[in-house]
Amino acid sequence: MSSSYGRNLTVTIFGQSHSPAVGVTVDGLPAGLAVDTAALARFLARRAPGRNEWSTPRREADEPEFLSGLVDGVTCGAPVTAILRSAAARPQDYAALRNIPRPGHADYTAHVKFGGFEDPTGGGHFSGRLTAPLCVAGGLCLQLLRREGIEVFAHVASVGEVEDVMPIEAPVDGKPFPVVSDARGEEMKALIRAARAEGDSVGGSVECVVTGAPAGLGDPIFDGMENRLAAALFGIPAVKAVEFGDGLAASRRRGSENNDAFAAENGKVETKTNHCGGILGGITDGMPLRVRVYFKPTPSISRAQTTARLDTGEQTELRVAGRHDPCIVPRAVPCVEAACAIALCDALLESRRY
Amino acid sequence: MSSSYGRNLTVTIFGQSHSPAVGVTVDGLPAGLAVDTAALARFLARRAPGRNEWSTPRREADEPEFLSGLVDGVTCGAPVTAILRSAAARPQDYAALRNIPRPGHADYTAHVKFGGFEDPTGGGHFSGRLTAPLCVAGGLCLQLLRREGIEVFAHVASVGEVEDVMPIEAPVDGKPFPVVSDARGEEMKALIRAARAEGDSVGGSVECVVTGAPAGLGDPIFDGMENRLAAALFGIPAVKAVEFGDGLAASRRRGSENNDAFAAENGKVETKTNHCGGILGGITDGMPLRVRVYFKPTPSISRAQTTARLDTGEQTELRVAGRHDPCIVPRAVPCVEAACAIALCDALLESRRY
Amino acid sequence: MSSSYGRNLTVTIFGQSHSPAVGVTVDGLPAGLAVDTAALARFLARRAPGRNEWSTPRREADEPEFLSGLVDGVTCGAPVTAILRSAAARPQDYAALRNIPRPGHADYTAHVKFGGFEDPTGGGHFSGRLTAPLCVAGGLCLQLLRREGIEVFAHVASVGEVEDVMPIEAPVDGKPFPVVSDARGEEMKALIRAARAEGDSVGGSVECVVTGAPAGLGDPIFDGMENRLAAALFGIPAVKAVEFGDGLAASRRRGSENNDAFAAENGKVETKTNHCGGILGGITDGMPLRVRVYFKPTPSISRAQTTARLDTGEQTELRVAGRHDPCIVPRAVPCVEAACAIALCDALLESRRY
Amino acid sequence: MSSSYGRNLTVTIFGQSHSPAVGVTVDGLPAGLAVDTAALARFLARRAPGRNEWSTPRREADEPEFLSGLVDGVTCGAPVTAILRSAAARPQDYAALRNIPRPGHADYTAHVKFGGFEDPTGGGHFSGRLTAPLCVAGGLCLQLLRREGIEVFAHVASVGEVEDVMPIEAPVDGKPFPVVSDARGEEMKALIRAARAEGDSVGGSVECVVTGAPAGLGDPIFDGMENRLAAALFGIPAVKAVEFGDGLAASRRRGSENNDAFAAENGKVETKTNHCGGILGGITDGMPLRVRVYFKPTPSISRAQTTARLDTGEQTELRVAGRHDPCIVPRAVPCVEAACAIALCDALLESRRY
Repeated sequence: MSSSYGRNLTVTIFGQSHSPAVGVTVDGLPAGLAVDTAALARFLARRAPGRNEWSTPRREADEPEFLSGLVDGVTCGAPVTAILRSAAARPQDYAALRNIPRPGHADYTAHVKFGGFEDPTGGGHFSGRLTAPLCVAGGLCLQLLRREGIEVFAHVASVGEVEDVMPIEAPVDGKPFPVVSDARGEEMKALIRAARAEGDSVGGSVECVVTGAPAGLGDPIFDGMENRLAAALFGIPAVKAVEFGDGLAASRRRGSENNDAFAAENGKVETKTNHCGGILGGITDGMPLRVRVYFKPTPSISRAQTTARLDTGEQTELRVAGRHDPCIVPRAVPCVEAACAIALCDALLESRRY
Repeated sequence: MSSSYGRNLTVTIFGQSHSPAVGVTVDGLPAGLAVDTAALARFLARRAPGRNEWSTPRREADEPEFLSGLVDGVTCGAPVTAILRSAAARPQDYAALRNIPRPGHADYTAHVKFGGFEDPTGGGHFSGRLTAPLCVAGGLCLQLLRREGIEVFAHVASVGEVEDVMPIEAPVDGKPFPVVSDARGEEMKALIRAARAEGDSVGGSVECVVTGAPAGLGDPIFDGMENRLAAALFGIPAVKAVEFGDGLAASRRRGSENNDAFAAENGKVETKTNHCGGILGGITDGMPLRVRVYFKPTPSISRAQTTARLDTGEQTELRVAGRHDPCIVPRAVPCVEAACAIALCDALLESRRY
Repeated sequence: MSSSYGRNLTVTIFGQSHSPAVGVTVDGLPAGLAVDTAALARFLARRAPGRNEWSTPRREADEPEFLSGLVDGVTCGAPVTAILRSAAARPQDYAALRNIPRPGHADYTAHVKFGGFEDPTGGGHFSGRLTAPLCVAGGLCLQLLRREGIEVFAHVASVGEVEDVMPIEAPVDGKPFPVVSDARGEEMKALIRAARAEGDSVGGSVECVVTGAPAGLGDPIFDGMENRLAAALFGIPAVKAVEFGDGLAASRRRGSENNDAFAAENGKVETKTNHCGGILGGITDGMPLRVRVYFKPTPSISRAQTTARLDTGEQTELRVAGRHDPCIVPRAVPCVEAACAIALCDALLESRRY
Repeated sequence: MSSSYGRNLTVTIFGQSHSPAVGVTVDGLPAGLAVDTAALARFLARRAPGRNEWSTPRREADEPEFLSGLVDGVTCGAPVTAILRSAAARPQDYAALRNIPRPGHADYTAHVKFGGFEDPTGGGHFSGRLTAPLCVAGGLCLQLLRREGIEVFAHVASVGEVEDVMPIEAPVDGKPFPVVSDARGEEMKALIRAARAEGDSVGGSVECVVTGAPAGLGDPIFDGMENRLAAALFGIPAVKAVEFGDGLAASRRRGSENNDAFAAENGKVETKTNHCGGILGGITDGMPLRVRVYFKPTPSISRAQTTARLDTGEQTELRVAGRHDPCIVPRAVPCVEAACAIALCDALLESRRY
């Protein structure tokens, strides 16, 4: 426990890397939402592997099959469940891997947690494959939000030391490499290629912006938008930090520099600056919401690594075979959008209560 | 909603800055925990204002009164409720403040959220005063954790641009200014004094380390230790970023640099480095858990600020009167420990299920 | 765990029979509800002991002190916490009782649950005293419901074999003994007096009706109104059965007798009969909601009973000293109204989401 | 919301009567449980329709397909998801039914709840078909409980006015008609045949007993075993009352008759009688747990009924076509066992926390 998120919109993710299917149940979507399956497919394609040189060439069948919750393509108020079948069967040779934990992965911690009964193949329930159902849920939420005039869009904010222009002001999801500055994008791609060439990987970050969200979303103390968004975003594998607004930079500033002055424009309260990232006291202030998510480098690398056998306690050397993303950040962009959309929908549905 | 946190240990915080009392209910503490009230008082004193030059001179009566859950000072399995009476009555002149939102505070967002019925004095339910009951709950959790051999300790990691030595390796809570390097502490204090002299404030960060936690705490996807800790930590006012292990630095590295190699020492799996901060796949790996929390500068400053009246929409100028912390980071140190202890206890109690 | 109820309106009850106070936190009440303290006091008085011959002569100070959540008597959106101080201190002689569980009480099960650390006096957290904070929360919810045109009212449906007229069609809370038929009430009182005269007690039931609730409250499967109401009602001590609509009688009928035919009246769908008690598929149908709650006889009786010492395992005889209600059913009437009101508010707030 | 149940073991049910599949996700099952698929199939067969004269002749493909959570048939700690494909496609003529709510069904209330977007075929998410995934989840829980020495078994306690011998003392699940007294069973079957012959249906009740549960399961106030069991049991369609122990009979008794005296036998506290049904103060006392569940007669009857069109408001006559169970009680027996097993597992897992 727990692979569920949310109170008024509950997203439950199931599946392992090599289970017959991965999937998601979304309970709480309002009835009457016509699902745009073409838009959903485009969204999922942005996460799918095998599309270009900076992602793993492994291809997955990422077309969701809706098992419930829809009548003629429209939500009916019942829980929506969608599954994605696994393309390949469980590998036959996984017994060999069972006792050799990959550094940086959850192999060892899952082993302790589940007492040796964990699914040892491909990361099991901890696999990046589970972001596919996350994106199905998020893709539905994005469509609900759009109906309310709320847009969520993200970009690759950094790869290694190279940073894109920030903040992002409009979607770049039409680009194969989702950055604002294509020049910076080329530098990032060069870093990724270099890492791959050396059997290595590289980390980075994603910035996500939400426009059109009304003031008043989120709740005090433990249910603020920061708490809610962070609780969703850390559900994406490899996320190690989450920052709102100016975050770290704000921690180095003075209050007189960092406070966002209020101004009344046409009967609407606004702030001229947005250091706080659209959230004050955990509640949206009507300005664009801004969050940045930092990813560690993909732990799967083909270079030799030292590890310890779980059965014999012997030290051993490991090379992670197979084809892996030298940088997961480009494919993580829609995952970040998905997690943000889920958290926003849950807060939005709750705010409509009275 | 919601001022509650946790599933197996539930912490519910109530009160406003000037309500008759603030308090907390902790449901789920195991029966049989003898509460060390002297240790609790020492812990709360570290958060209390008015103790030194870098905190507000306002003094609060921070001695908790236990209303329930204890028999002869020992937990009896029923919910533990403790309250802290407010020293001063609600200010008489608060009507004047009702329509003038302070920049950087929750005044405006609470106004939108609660339709003008929000408590307008001293930040209401969003006040830093609410960290007192958080620390009562956290102080109890720390005692439970200590019984299990788990220690939680934090320090001022930075004020403005000045950074303390990191990571912290042993508690510094005996020091009036909780830093590892007293020389860096002096630099920090100089920054705080300078800000105060100019009617300004300054931000910073707190690093917290947990030792002795067993491997296997935390759960997949949305209930990982990162999700759980972040959801608790963003409950502290002014937190704008949360970073685990090497976090941002990791996002700039290669996988071969960032992966923590496993080694078997005396039949126990360990890692020689700890870039991941003791968490892999959301689950503790038995190494020290490390988290850093970034605070924006206190929004309450006495310098003139621009704001917009909520009733007339007119622009106006505001100077926040009263005595405020020029830097909340030193007093936030025990708050971070409290939030981490609560999240750990909840995960620990859940892990004991089977 | 757990002394909390509800998702969108969360009620958390704390306290033990002899703790310094008992109390309740209600999180989720909409801001802007002006609390009618006189009406609340009248409601609480109906539950209070010592008012008449069929309740324990012990008097409690049942005036709630609001610690938080109100500004000038109006809810402000923050959690509302109210406490009731205990009149008397913990009895000095309770050690003597610790190992002698009273039959029919939770003494033994609490002992097992809490490993001997349970509060052994007066039932601890399991005491009927805890229905006082339940009624504070319920009293607030009743005021919120009334604002929406929803009325909740209950009566003594039976004492022993004597049944009142059913269903109740209008409130009888002005009567000292809350029954529809005063003649039946006299018979009930005679039963209660007879039980008391013999140092015994007697059971009974309460019927509760809700009028004015809109169609559409409640949710499928596990969050139907029956599930929600039952989960709240079994929170009242001594409740052993909960029945909706014709319940047991329906189980003996044929479908053609039991189905409620639909009719359209003035553009509104209604049913001519109401065997289902206003709930179909877990969701309100707009007709009066009807539930009946069955109470076992008060386990506290002054007659000699056989029990087993928990320390020595010896059989012993016990006479429960003190003054106890020979029948708790009359005082349980407002408790049932309170539990129903809480469950309805939670469902109502959730239904307003979209 | 919400089609989920439980805190430490979470059961999420999805699907509609004619959606491509119905299914369930069980999150929180301990890793290492070897699923006995033959035993599960036998359990599901007891619920499946079409097996005998007193159930609908419609046959369903009730073999669950496990999509996740198992490795070589053993739970791996990840959520277990199983689906049951629907045999038949959505009926083509359902538009005709959309505006004609069947009396006694959720058609009208679902229409109000979901604003006309509800699934109008076969009861949608409110269909009895959803008890198939409930039984999958319950069947897994039964296997976990058995491993702990806990047995759960139920029987048809009544059909119409005919009652079986009570309480049940050993499983009767080997019998095609699950009653203790086969003579009473014949009387019940005669009632069912008579109802069917007249195009009608008949109600009844199920009694369930749990043996081997340790003392100490369940929690105070809102999380008592009665609250937990009732919240699960009302998830079964057509349940209108839930009664623990002697329930209604207890409400007519005196305390001296109803209290269960404690006795110490071989160092173990027991009660000689079990009027309380094994639960005191919401917590199990180690004696057999006993609950009775009352079902209204199947609302689907082929006799003519009056209803109101939702589009035009006109009164109309309806005969529910198709083949329906004249009495659902025999098939509800495993459903009651399933719901009880789920509630017990959740409580058991929680009790193991410390």
